[in-house]
Amino acid sequence: MENIFEKLSAEQKEELERQFSIYAGGVEEIIPSIELKQKLARSILTDKPLKIKLGLDPSAPDVHIGHTVVLNKLKQFQENGHIIQLIIGDFTGKIGDPTGKTAARKQLTDEEVKHNAMTYFEQFGKVLDMSKVELHYNSKWLKELKLEDIIHLAASITVARLLERNDFSNRLAEGKPISLHEFFYPLMQGYDSVMLESDVELGGTDQHFNVLMGRHLQDHFGKEKQVVILLPLLEGLDGVEKMSKSKHNYIGIDEKPHEMYGKTMSIPDDLMIKYFELVTDLTVEEKETVKQDLLNGTLHPRDAKMLLAKTIVAMYHGNEAAAEAEKHFTSVFQNGGMPDEIPVVVVDFDGEVLVIDLLVELELLRSKGEARKMILNGGVKIDGEKIKDIHQNLIVVEGMVIQVGKRKFVKLLRKEG
Amino acid sequence: MENIFEKLSAEQKEELERQFSIYAGGVEEIIPSIELKQKLARSILTDKPLKIKLGLDPSAPDVHIGHTVVLNKLKQFQENGHIIQLIIGDFTGKIGDPTGKTAARKQLTDEEVKHNAMTYFEQFGKVLDMSKVELHYNSKWLKELKLEDIIHLAASITVARLLERNDFSNRLAEGKPISLHEFFYPLMQGYDSVMLESDVELGGTDQHFNVLMGRHLQDHFGKEKQVVILLPLLEGLDGVEKMSKSKHNYIGIDEKPHEMYGKTMSIPDDLMIKYFELVTDLTVEEKETVKQDLLNGTLHPRDAKMLLAKTIVAMYHGNEAAAEAEKHFTSVFQNGGMPDEIPVVVVDFDGEVLVIDLLVELELLRSKGEARKMILNGGVKIDGEKIKDIHQNLIVVEGMVIQVGKRKFVKLLRKEG
Repeated sequence: MENIFEKLSAEQKEELERQFSIYAGGVEEIIPSIELKQKLARSILTDKPLKIKLGLDPSAPDVHIGHTVVLNKLKQFQENGHIIQLIIGDFTGKIGDPTGKTAARKQLTDEEVKHNAMTYFEQFGKVLDMSKVELHYNSKWLKELKLEDIIHLAASITVARLLERNDFSNRLAEGKPISLHEFFYPLMQGYDSVMLESDVELGGTDQHFNVLMGRHLQDHFGKEKQVVILLPLLEGLDGVEKMSKSKHNYIGIDEKPHEMYGKTMSIPDDLMIKYFELVTDLTVEEKETVKQDLLNGTLHPRDAKMLLAKTIVAMYHGNEAAAEAEKHFTSVFQNGGMPDEIPVVVVDFDGEVLVIDLLVELELLRSKGEARKMILNGGVKIDGEKIKDIHQNLIVVEGMVIQVGKRKFVKLLRKEG
Repeated sequence: MENIFEKLSAEQKEELERQFSIYAGGVEEIIPSIELKQKLARSILTDKPLKIKLGLDPSAPDVHIGHTVVLNKLKQFQENGHIIQLIIGDFTGKIGDPTGKTAARKQLTDEEVKHNAMTYFEQFGKVLDMSKVELHYNSKWLKELKLEDIIHLAASITVARLLERNDFSNRLAEGKPISLHEFFYPLMQGYDSVMLESDVELGGTDQHFNVLMGRHLQDHFGKEKQVVILLPLLEGLDGVEKMSKSKHNYIGIDEKPHEMYGKTMSIPDDLMIKYFELVTDLTVEEKETVKQDLLNGTLHPRDAKMLLAKTIVAMYHGNEAAAEAEKHFTSVFQNGGMPDEIPVVVVDFDGEVLVIDLLVELELLRSKGEARKMILNGGVKIDGEKIKDIHQNLIVVEGMVIQVGKRKFVKLLRKEG
């Protein structure tokens, strides 16, 4: 396959380089690059699309823009005519955790799996053309595997290799138990690639070991090995932890325009470039311009972040909604002079809470009396809306911004529960 | 179950102690003794026999007296009315070695498995009453297991526990590969105990880990745990290695009387007591008498070994054949004055070889001329039979004794192939 490039016309070579540079943009690693080029060359020569695989955990269907890092990469492949294979990992979902130790991995019913898959489907539709996407449930082949098949599968991999996986080696070293069945999950994920003959598998850098297993098993079963593309993990609103629902530091892709806009405005400045790179659909050139303008000071960070927020809202709600969210944001915060970075407070309120109690609890005001006075003076705003009633209750919402007076702002995140 | 003993009558208590002392004779370990007593107590009270399990590897059906250590133990249980469960491990036999690394574990056909099982059956018939033995093929349940079942099975055991097994931990430490599927074998063996609800499993001390797995898995599946009885391993004719066919240091239980007798006479003196203990059907008292007489010098080691040889031959060929083998042995070796221990030479001849070539090769004589002369003078005996023809060919047989002149003896063992 090495000299396949010689068969390409000048035009085809150009097309190969064009596609490759798109796919290589913003990724952490391509394993190995040369094979991706070879596969692309063959695809261009034979006019046969590549099969691009993404595995999904059916237990957590809430999609946030952290997920869109990989979705945007899929979209690039789709826009060039390649086939997207989404695999719902329903087999493991239906088993649950056989040790019963983690409540998190509870056993899902067929209905729940279907429902969650449909939720993915709807939300992914905001990025991908779902009419062209293949949807697979891996229980289809995994539930049919018998002991003999599994022994053949297991024979291809050594215990030492499995123990190389970071979390396994750490747990073994620390004397924490690893149940034998946990060794199966990477194998099952890899076997999906065998069954679907995937050409490329995408995953976050934390999936390094698992996606390489697909490559290994395809080889073991005499199939062409998939290329692995590892994508960076996106930090959430706190700027520290990987964006995730359980960390309450996420921007959901079906959130309302002004929530989405406001949350984006709250990310730390030093993450802006990464967000531009990974979760916007700006062209390579546009991204480069933003980056340069920020570096040489011709673009104010505040304006860059507003461009980011507007771009993200436009991707999921259209240009009109994006313009409106921007207008809402500036009208609300223009007079108040919202600072570039708002301090974040993590809270764990459940249900409704009196605004005056909240203000005291958060130490924004020293007493309920002061809180009442400030409300009556029109000095308390929540998400830019003036609070008028001293008896008002509210439900604490992720990313909610409370303003007291002209200069005191605080953004609320919910405590991981 | 603790106070089940209180329900026993004095007579029943006596019966319990009688059986227990028989089963405990000559074993390495009972895990745990108290549970064996409890099971026996219940069996006596309810008149329900215990189920005694032995797993067999279908790839090596040649039974030698090393195997009879465990067979004799089974026989003791059978004589007291308990049920023997023989499991032919045909599932793994039919899979072979999926890594293809060891030629030894080649894939067996259904016919081969059946044939080998029948070979066991015939040979075991020399020790056990096979009409009362249950024969099981573990492929019956193992081949039906699906991935979901296997994951539940695997979830019950930790990787650390599997790595405790001596050969696994050594191999991991030495950087030698352990294929993941090797972790399955103890699980499968243990699962057999779950399916058959065995009360007791027998095994050699080298099976320690595997037989305990049955106990663990029965517990995991909510069944009563089996008791494990570990038996010592019997060293072969060389007095060093475990008796095995591949080491060519064995006495087959279907060997001819005078071969069996001669091979037994060739074991090192210091193994005699162990052989009496483990592979003869003498009573506990008879064994003790031999031991004491040897210790206080009233029994000559040569005579003790002849008693051992005669006893073993009688077990497999009857008293008459045993008496004849003894007569043959003494008539052949009496004049020659066979030494107590004959030097052993390991050879690797295949096919036929000229006696004169063999004599020179083994450095028993310095030249073919000398060898010819010695044969013509009637000075060469093989297994006590005088060689008369200088052109005689022979096939080297395990344990064959060559005598040159009056005092030169050598015993041949075949090189491990």
